[in-house]
Parts: sequence; structure tokens; C-alpha cells
Amino acid sequence: MKFTIQPLSNALNDALKYKIDQKTKPLGSLGQLERIAYQIGRIQNNLTPRLENPAVVVVGADHGICAEGVSPCPTEVTWQQMYNFAADGGGISLFAKHAGMKTVVVDAGVDHDFPADSGIVDCKVRKGTRNFLKEPAMTLAECEKAMANGAEIVTQLHENGTNVVAFGEMGIGNTSPASVLMSLICGMPMETCVGPGSGLDDEGVRNKCRVLSEAVANHGKLENPLEILATYGGLEIATIVGGMLKAAELKMLILNDGFIITSALLVAQAMHKEVLDYTIFSHKSKEGGHTLMVEYMNGEPVLDLDLRLGEGTGAALAYPVVTAAVEMLNNMTSFEEASITDTTDNGIRVIE
Amino acid sequence: MKFTIQPLSNALNDALKYKIDQKTKPLGSLGQLERIAYQIGRIQNNLTPRLENPAVVVVGADHGICAEGVSPCPTEVTWQQMYNFAADGGGISLFAKHAGMKTVVVDAGVDHDFPADSGIVDCKVRKGTRNFLKEPAMTLAECEKAMANGAEIVTQLHENGTNVVAFGEMGIGNTSPASVLMSLICGMPMETCVGPGSGLDDEGVRNKCRVLSEAVANHGKLENPLEILATYGGLEIATIVGGMLKAAELKMLILNDGFIITSALLVAQAMHKEVLDYTIFSHKSKEGGHTLMVEYMNGEPVLDLDLRLGEGTGAALAYPVVTAAVEMLNNMTSFEEASITDTTDNGIRVIE
Repeated sequence: MKFTIQPLSNALNDALKYKIDQKTKPLGSLGQLERIAYQIGRIQNNLTPRLENPAVVVVGADHGICAEGVSPCPTEVTWQQMYNFAADGGGISLFAKHAGMKTVVVDAGVDHDFPADSGIVDCKVRKGTRNFLKEPAMTLAECEKAMANGAEIVTQLHENGTNVVAFGEMGIGNTSPASVLMSLICGMPMETCVGPGSGLDDEGVRNKCRVLSEAVANHGKLENPLEILATYGGLEIATIVGGMLKAAELKMLILNDGFIITSALLVAQAMHKEVLDYTIFSHKSKEGGHTLMVEYMNGEPVLDLDLRLGEGTGAALAYPVVTAAVEMLNNMTSFEEASITDTTDNGIRVIE
Repeated sequence: MKFTIQPLSNALNDALKYKIDQKTKPLGSLGQLERIAYQIGRIQNNLTPRLENPAVVVVGADHGICAEGVSPCPTEVTWQQMYNFAADGGGISLFAKHAGMKTVVVDAGVDHDFPADSGIVDCKVRKGTRNFLKEPAMTLAECEKAMANGAEIVTQLHENGTNVVAFGEMGIGNTSPASVLMSLICGMPMETCVGPGSGLDDEGVRNKCRVLSEAVANHGKLENPLEILATYGGLEIATIVGGMLKAAELKMLILNDGFIITSALLVAQAMHKEVLDYTIFSHKSKEGGHTLMVEYMNGEPVLDLDLRLGEGTGAALAYPVVTAAVEMLNNMTSFEEASITDTTDNGIRVIE
């Protein structure tokens, strides 16, 4: 798959800074909100950017690695939750609705046959990945098919007027592929990358770490991000990697989420660094090495609420802050509009 | 002024924990959202709490201490901003509207005559405080009058169906009284409590610190919180202290804000510790020792966005997270409702 991602234009940098500085507030006093507004203005190359038809793409898949006891949760929960989301239940449905976002539920590889009228978009490549302790999780062709599916979903959203997209996931066991992707792409030891997932105890975490380390030893040294993704990734993760790259190509704003989605972003930026220009880091998750992944990409999380649910919930919860930043840029009064003494000479500029 | 604040009931503690644990998610995986929902359930003593007619009370006043050069901002900005807020402009108007909150703009002591039709609630005790480097900022009677005004405003909101209230402020120079209140109530050295406010440079911060330390030396040792508030506080701060205590008495949810509002909360909790049971700490401000004040009260901020604007903006920005937490408690599907395998035995409970 080929993606062409433009770096952000610098044409409006000064005009955006000036507009933000002229709002009725001490210089820089809206902190991260100012940085978010500035980034979105640059992405849209517009002093009055608009976020339109926001969507959360929630992608589900199952994981062969579950055979190694890496999750305390039965794998049937994956398909059960997919029905729950499709019926407007569960965390992501609730928080997306709360934030005014549309939810698109996608089956990338769940080990279950969903009926045609389930409301779940069928992008199934196969019923779950293979057990990557023993063989690659996907073939390169399967991995590329999943990426193409993700790109296609995002293209359709874009054609229907969406310019901001969050990604969420459902897949019992998927902190395992995410931990391996983190370890290999960030070059960090496996222990740093492994956490309790949906609730492993200490012994469970040690076992998970042992299984994942052994898997990495079995496959030998891989450096190409596509090969790493195919060997250790999940079908939902590959679908999301394709979706993110297409979203950046289409100059959409991307809202990153927790541990799994961030592992997809790691892969995406290893393929095309520029994807990060289009990304806002919604939150700092409590799972495993999420904070380290975010730091690796120089991300600045919007929220830090000890979340570790996934599904895109962090992105949906952060979205009102993102829209508030755009509101500020577009609609907050300036010193001149409000006839207020301009105090911008008294302060220190923070957006540099 | 006398306030009677009940500690929270424990009657529903177990039922609230159980209800939260039965939601379709790994145990504890919604982190701080679960703690917010639990607190609000306890405040309202209800498994299905409702937040009704949310309001931000923005209180303005001027400060005699400005004569000592403690702010880089001309004092006319106080009344200019009050008109701006009343005309639905400025940061707090924008973010309150964005969060679905009503704004009430209150003059507690601005050095300006607002016309009767300005839309600003007249609670003026006097035109600004006295210069507390030389004499007490307020008499005890003035301070109590301001507190009574704040209590009255909150009582009226409550009578009109509001059960959640945020406080904001406007007052050039008001980080100075806030820093002194912090220093005296937390027992921390003045240098720890002083920041750049609306944009002082390093020399300005040193001067501010010197002025405030000298003021504290001039007035001798004070321990009674009312006396401390009258001697060093602001009229907006005293009004807000009264508003917070009345809100807690009426079992309303209180949303704390940045440096100034948190200094009011410090005073309020020194008078009645129980006010903290009713308070959510909206955010961690970048100003001065805000983080230390929050830690002193064992607060857990919802947002950390480098904000230092005040006005109640942090509270308005955090409010969508608070409503999301209540939505979760009331409307997120349970394992049983969604026919999902109950995984609560696999995880570790985090609300203890």
C-alpha cells in the first residue's frame, strides 16, 4: 500500500499565533488549548478551522496468542462486545454519543460469524490471527489487506464529510501484540512494555512477558515495520494503521487513544513519520508502557484519567477539549473586539 | 456566618461500587471517571444522580495591593473584562457555553460603576480592597458581607434547580491575595506560593514576593481563617468562600478552578473541612503553587492543560468529563444487560 502524506504547511503559522495571542487573556494562558488550536489550524491551513462529522472507528479482532494464557478474559468477550457496541452499548458508544461523535464498528478478524444485519462493517480478513509464538500472526498479504480495509473505511468517512477521526479497538489479548510492537519499534525491553491488560495478576504478567520474549526470539531480527506488523500485530491493529495513514493523507485530524491504538500509531509513523503531524494524543493510559510510547513520539496527552479501557474511549472523552480549542480560535473575543487594553506586550509568548 | 455542612452519607457506598463494577469493562478501567461517579453518587445519595442546570459564578473585584506593582496588567482590565463576560465574550463565556453551563457575572468589589442594565449582578461591598501592605484588605464586617452575598447567590441558583456550581473570578492583582492565603493556610514559604500571574518577569515576581512577605510581617501572626481572609483576601475571594460553603450546605457539587478559586477553597475548608467532600478539582493550573494547594487538600485534578487563565475556565473545560462520568454510572450497559461474560472476578477492584 502506498500513502502520500504531506508535511503541514507553514503558511499560516504567524497568522495563527497572532490570532491566538489577540484573544482576551494573558499570553499563553490557555496552554495546551492554544497548541491544539494551532495544530488544527495548520492541518486545515485555515485560520478558522472546522471539525466536521467526527467519527470513532472501533475495530475488533481476535488473537491466536491467547492460546498462551496471556489474557485473563475469555475470547468470547470480543464478539460479545462487538454486538454490544453495534447495539449502542458499552463504553465507547456512550462516550462517543456524549461527545457528539458517530461510531463505526468494524470486524477486522473476530472469531465469530456476525449476521449481515448486525450493523457491524464486515472487513474480516480471517477469524483471528495465528499464534505468533509459533508462526507469523498474519501473512504480508493478509496484513496489507487489513491496512487497505482501514484506508477504505476512512476514505468513505471522508467522502461523507468527516474530517476528524478517532480509532478504537476491541480484541481480547490485544495488549500482547501491542507490547511486542512497542518493544520492537521503540527498542525497549519487553518488561517495560508489558502490563496487566484487562486484569492479569503479577504471575500472569510474568508469563505474558515470557511468552512475548520467546516469540520475538523465535522470529529473529525484523526491521521493516510492515514485516513487524504482520508477524506480531493484530488484524484490528493493521486495519487501524491503514486507516491512520489514509486519514493523514486526506489531511484529517487523527485522535489517538490508549495502548493498542498507540501501538498502531507507532507502526504508522515508522512507515510515514508525517502521520504524527495530524495526530492529537487524547490521553495517557494506565496500561503498560503507554506513557513511554507517547513520549517516544513526543506526544502531549490531553487527558490523564487513569483510563485503561481502550475502545477509543479516551479519544471520545478528550474530544470536548479539542472542540473547545477550536471554539477558542474561532469565537473567543479579541482585545479589539472587546475594547480591552491589549496586554500582549506584558507577557511571554509560549507558542514558539 | 454560620454554615452546617453534612459529611457524605455512606449508605450507598457498596451499591455504587457494585453498579460501577458491573459495567461492561475491566474492573477499575475507567479510573478517575469511576471515582468522580462514585463521589457524585454519594453527594446526591443516589445510584442515578443527575447534574442539573450547571452554573459558573464569575465574581470580579479590584485589589488595593496593585498599588505596589504586583501585576503587569492595568487594573482597568478588571471592569473591561466584566463587561466582556456580561456580553457573552471572553474565555469563560465561551467555554461555559461549550459545556452547557450558565454564566452568572457578579461584581463583588470592582472599582467601576456598572449601569443597572449591564447584566452584572451587583454585590459590590466596596470599590476594591484596601492595600494590605499597609492595612487590612477588608474589615471583618466587609468580609462577612461578601461571604453572605456569595451564599445568597448560590441559594438563588439552588432554588432555580441548579445542583452543580463552578466558581470563576476576574480581578487584576488577585494572585497576590491568593498567594498569601496559600502561604498562611498551608504553612508554606511565600516563594513557593508566588508565580508570574498574568505575565510578570523574574524581577517582577521577586518584587511581588517581597511585598507579600512584608505585608505578612506587618500584620503579625493570624490563625483564624476569617481574620486571614479579611486581612489579605479579595472581595471576590470572600464572596466565593461564602458561595462554596453554602453550596456544600445545600449538597451541591462544587467544581474548583485555578489558583484564585483554589485559595478560596483553602479558606473554606479551613472553616469547614467537609466542603471538600462536595468538591471536584477541575484542573491543575500552571500558576504558582497551584499544584501544591491541590495536593494539600488531597485533590485529584481532572485536567492538566497548562492553563493559567482563571475565570472558571478550567472548571468549564473539565465539566464534560464530569458529565461523562455520571453518564457512565447511569447509562453504560452492565454485563448482564449486554449478555457479556462477567469478568469482574478476574480483576482488581480500584475503588476502595
